[in-house]
Amino acid sequence: MTTTFPPTDRSTVRRLPKRGSNDREVVYRILDEGLICHVGFVIDGAPRVIPTGYVRIKDDLYIHGSPASSMLSAAGGSSDICVTVSLIDGLVLARSAFHHSVNYRSVVVFGKAHTVDSAEEKLAVLQAFTEHMVPGRWSDARKPTDGELRGTKVLRLPLVEASAKIRIGPPIDDEEDYDLPIWAGVVPLSLVAGEPVPDADLRMDIQPPEYATNYSRNPNSQR
Amino acid sequence: MTTTFPPTDRSTVRRLPKRGSNDREVVYRILDEGLICHVGFVIDGAPRVIPTGYVRIKDDLYIHGSPASSMLSAAGGSSDICVTVSLIDGLVLARSAFHHSVNYRSVVVFGKAHTVDSAEEKLAVLQAFTEHMVPGRWSDARKPTDGELRGTKVLRLPLVEASAKIRIGPPIDDEEDYDLPIWAGVVPLSLVAGEPVPDADLRMDIQPPEYATNYSRNPNSQR
Repeated sequence: MTTTFPPTDRSTVRRLPKRGSNDREVVYRILDEGLICHVGFVIDGAPRVIPTGYVRIKDDLYIHGSPASSMLSAAGGSSDICVTVSLIDGLVLARSAFHHSVNYRSVVVFGKAHTVDSAEEKLAVLQAFTEHMVPGRWSDARKPTDGELRGTKVLRLPLVEASAKIRIGPPIDDEEDYDLPIWAGVVPLSLVAGEPVPDADLRMDIQPPEYATNYSRNPNSQR
Repeated sequence: MTTTFPPTDRSTVRRLPKRGSNDREVVYRILDEGLICHVGFVIDGAPRVIPTGYVRIKDDLYIHGSPASSMLSAAGGSSDICVTVSLIDGLVLARSAFHHSVNYRSVVVFGKAHTVDSAEEKLAVLQAFTEHMVPGRWSDARKPTDGELRGTKVLRLPLVEASAKIRIGPPIDDEEDYDLPIWAGVVPLSLVAGEPVPDADLRMDIQPPEYATNYSRNPNSQR
């Protein structure tokens, strides 16, 4: 695989192109930090955008769900879909209202998704999915049965046409505004875990695992 | 306005319908807590999904940006768009890998967006936009000039066809799994603000305002 995604018309960031990147590593880092994606597909010529979980394995992105999901039926057809992942990193308070912004990292992926039929690949996806959500969880959880694997629909979207867009850093004000007596800067935002809430039906002798009490979406996140 | 959105085929939650709501207040609470939306639109028959800021004013949702934005040009056409807002509330750790889930609140809005031409309405939108992002900020910030208003494209999407979908609460395991010696519960997640980072060019005598040092996206959020 090349280290960059070959740019296409729709994967090229045109508005503020300096914020765009087609670097595979940049794209993958964002995909690996995100928890949910927004899947765009078309029904009767009109768009639908549905949030769902996902995981990246090597150069493929996977989504999964019930075979009864109309989103998966539509997204797994022969038409292109668009999968977008967005991370919010901060509020950018400029001196002028006009230049207020948000620091973010986002990825947009285009392509066709294919249904995964092999039970072996489905199992690998469910494992990766669980570990993407909560690293360390798979070895503790009760593994999927054959029936559960049959009852899970998995779509694979090859990571071929994708790009990232990132805004980072301080506000950019108009030159003449820098002297105004107005506070300006960034309020960092991140998805933070609270204390685990045990299931009311949990057996009394079970302590929460370290991956739950010490959960962090991205300990090395830059803002 | 009615207190519920009249259900349409595409706004009706079919998969796990108990999680769906067409209650206007439920939808508005989610829209007011969210920071970014994902706008879905169609170009040459294929979907695109782009993250952007937004604000709700009464029964309309507004997005805005540069007149050069191809997203705004496409979304402001005569075709339907889909705007989705998703809030992540927690990771749901079931005993079985299969029943792992995410607690979330999401809203999907369908409709046609119209370009706002009136400078007065644009100004009201920019004010609401700033206050939606950082309550209390508008009165401090340097207000938009006429040129900035002209240089801002605003789209209005009437909130007519919309629904919410919410997952809340503990994991739901299969009956026979409740006795397994596996921790189960919820790891709450929320978007949390860190300490404000002043702009390097900030005048030395300016202290960060309370709305920046004490920022909370939703102090009354339930999980």
